[in-house]
Amino acid sequence: MGAIITLTTDFGLSDGYVAAMKGVVLGINPEARLVDICHSIRPQDVSQAAFVLSTAWEYFPRRTVHLVVVDPGVGTERKAIILRTPAADFVAPDGPGFKAVVISRPVFWRSPVSTTFHGRDIFAPVAAHLSLGVPPEDFGEAITSLTVLAVPQPYRAPDGRLIGHIRHIDNFGNLITSIRGSELPLKARTIAVEVGNQAISGLSRTYGTGEGLLAIIGSSGYLEISLRGGDARAFLRVEVGDEVMVKEGDR
Amino acid sequence: MGAIITLTTDFGLSDGYVAAMKGVVLGINPEARLVDICHSIRPQDVSQAAFVLSTAWEYFPRRTVHLVVVDPGVGTERKAIILRTPAADFVAPDGPGFKAVVISRPVFWRSPVSTTFHGRDIFAPVAAHLSLGVPPEDFGEAITSLTVLAVPQPYRAPDGRLIGHIRHIDNFGNLITSIRGSELPLKARTIAVEVGNQAISGLSRTYGTGEGLLAIIGSSGYLEISLRGGDARAFLRVEVGDEVMVKEGDR
Amino acid sequence: MGAIITLTTDFGLSDGYVAAMKGVVLGINPEARLVDICHSIRPQDVSQAAFVLSTAWEYFPRRTVHLVVVDPGVGTERKAIILRTPAADFVAPDGPGFKAVVISRPVFWRSPVSTTFHGRDIFAPVAAHLSLGVPPEDFGEAITSLTVLAVPQPYRAPDGRLIGHIRHIDNFGNLITSIRGSELPLKARTIAVEVGNQAISGLSRTYGTGEGLLAIIGSSGYLEISLRGGDARAFLRVEVGDEVMVKEGDR
Repeated sequence: MGAIITLTTDFGLSDGYVAAMKGVVLGINPEARLVDICHSIRPQDVSQAAFVLSTAWEYFPRRTVHLVVVDPGVGTERKAIILRTPAADFVAPDGPGFKAVVISRPVFWRSPVSTTFHGRDIFAPVAAHLSLGVPPEDFGEAITSLTVLAVPQPYRAPDGRLIGHIRHIDNFGNLITSIRGSELPLKARTIAVEVGNQAISGLSRTYGTGEGLLAIIGSSGYLEISLRGGDARAFLRVEVGDEVMVKEGDR
Repeated sequence: MGAIITLTTDFGLSDGYVAAMKGVVLGINPEARLVDICHSIRPQDVSQAAFVLSTAWEYFPRRTVHLVVVDPGVGTERKAIILRTPAADFVAPDGPGFKAVVISRPVFWRSPVSTTFHGRDIFAPVAAHLSLGVPPEDFGEAITSLTVLAVPQPYRAPDGRLIGHIRHIDNFGNLITSIRGSELPLKARTIAVEVGNQAISGLSRTYGTGEGLLAIIGSSGYLEISLRGGDARAFLRVEVGDEVMVKEGDR
Repeated sequence: MGAIITLTTDFGLSDGYVAAMKGVVLGINPEARLVDICHSIRPQDVSQAAFVLSTAWEYFPRRTVHLVVVDPGVGTERKAIILRTPAADFVAPDGPGFKAVVISRPVFWRSPVSTTFHGRDIFAPVAAHLSLGVPPEDFGEAITSLTVLAVPQPYRAPDGRLIGHIRHIDNFGNLITSIRGSELPLKARTIAVEVGNQAISGLSRTYGTGEGLLAIIGSSGYLEISLRGGDARAFLRVEVGDEVMVKEGDR
């Protein structure tokens, strides 16, 4: 029963890059269990990577190692870190805060280290050694300040409307917003959601019935906009970042 | 040597949904061996999922658990079932008959169950417990009637021609039809296949030689139409569902 | 700790073909560890398969079995081979030379063998038996001559320029050329690279800084052309096979 290591990258599936990382991991920890989270993150889109990982990592067993390589700064001076939380370890370019360690001891790296593929030469071997039980502090110095990804938070407009944005669009064309279900008024039937010049009255409980647009609290706990039997993105012609507004209904 | 669990979904590869299911499975059965069959089923296209699974499941060892989540009815009243056959177990929304059990005992589910992601909250944990040897009847009541997917069958026209349709188009643009090789006349050389306003004389034994369109009994046992060195779908401008006719040749 | 078997095919991810092969492998070697290298090789593009595999195979542990099924000649008279090198075994249609064996003994194959899917019926079971320690010579006769893939090599033009071509374009739009870093003059700052009617002066050490096009020795050891923060393929409107020229700078 080897340790689980997940992988999230912007490498796509048409190159050998992901496999090279897996080969490096298996060379160090032959018992590692590799699980792909997603390799089609838009190039260098750290925000999308953070969102996709956030919808998956908590469903893995404790002590899973999550290896993330979406890295606008490969070869530059950005730091690589290990982040140990009570539930999981994250190995990633400097990004999200509990016990954080800068990856700085080359003894755990492949040699030589290329200037262009730190995923294979630094992150993968570190994840593999971590999965074998090497403690985070052996990989480098503990740090207390991190670059935290700035994700725009919903805010309340002067007229009382809650203003958020589209955080992610999934494979079905569902729009996942930045608005948590817990932020919405309790009487769900009285709310109205506006997006892409369309208004939706009330919250639905399932995707499965009726016609037209619907608003729903999705499986990740956020407000989602969905088109029954269709693709809300194509129908509304909206993209990640577009505004979504929620107001109490007229009743 | 953990149990094998395969996964077939319409979730695509750009979200964290598939990985969330795998995390849930590994949390319950850390020895499970996860094998992806296909995650690019067209959204809610149960027919395509059934076809793709039919080309793969029988090549897996006995007692493999096949987890299928292509689910137009998530959150509605459709049933979830386990289907135990002599060779394999299928965990799926109500669909294909031997020993069938309705999945109704929440003790095996994640808690709370979302209304939108039963793949993660019901199907994945049930597949994981099943792979650990929990008998199907522990998950719910046995049932005897199932919703069977209606796949149009080939029929014989009054003029003697066999009329089928395109059942699937693969990554190479090969057209896999609904006509089994065993339904064709024995003297293969004397048949003519018509599709997309083109006629093809006789059956070929391989894709590999010559030029132009060919008809062949493919690896799944069905009549296929292929374009040598090309893409038959693009060449013929046909789609899944289009008619394919077979008649005895003029000889 | 089962043997590792990697898979490289042109099967795409929308069919059940890859999974059928994995099922066959696991039926023979239930301990096999399956790692996908790439399944989106362009149909029958043996050259692309060879390149992608070349960027990944050496990072796997010794004795990994690499199963490659990109096969323009399925069902024809082309040979299937096992190639044992000191580091790894390759199971593939006749292609790249050390100890080579023709796969000719049907006792290790699935029965019956289809005429159209040798990946599932011959290559996958042979890879699985090989991973269990069956020696290559048990699968067929040793051979000494192989069909070697002709990859155009860079050459020196009369005016002293080094002429190569674009060998591969990766998911980021980086152009990987056929020119090895070791073939370039030592004083990297004095070289100029020409591609797609653009000239690039000098070599960069990282992708991560500045603007515009850059030339770099990539992680695979070859000269690459990259657009900072963008997609060099789209910017230069070039494709695999296009010429790349390197000359000593004017200085």
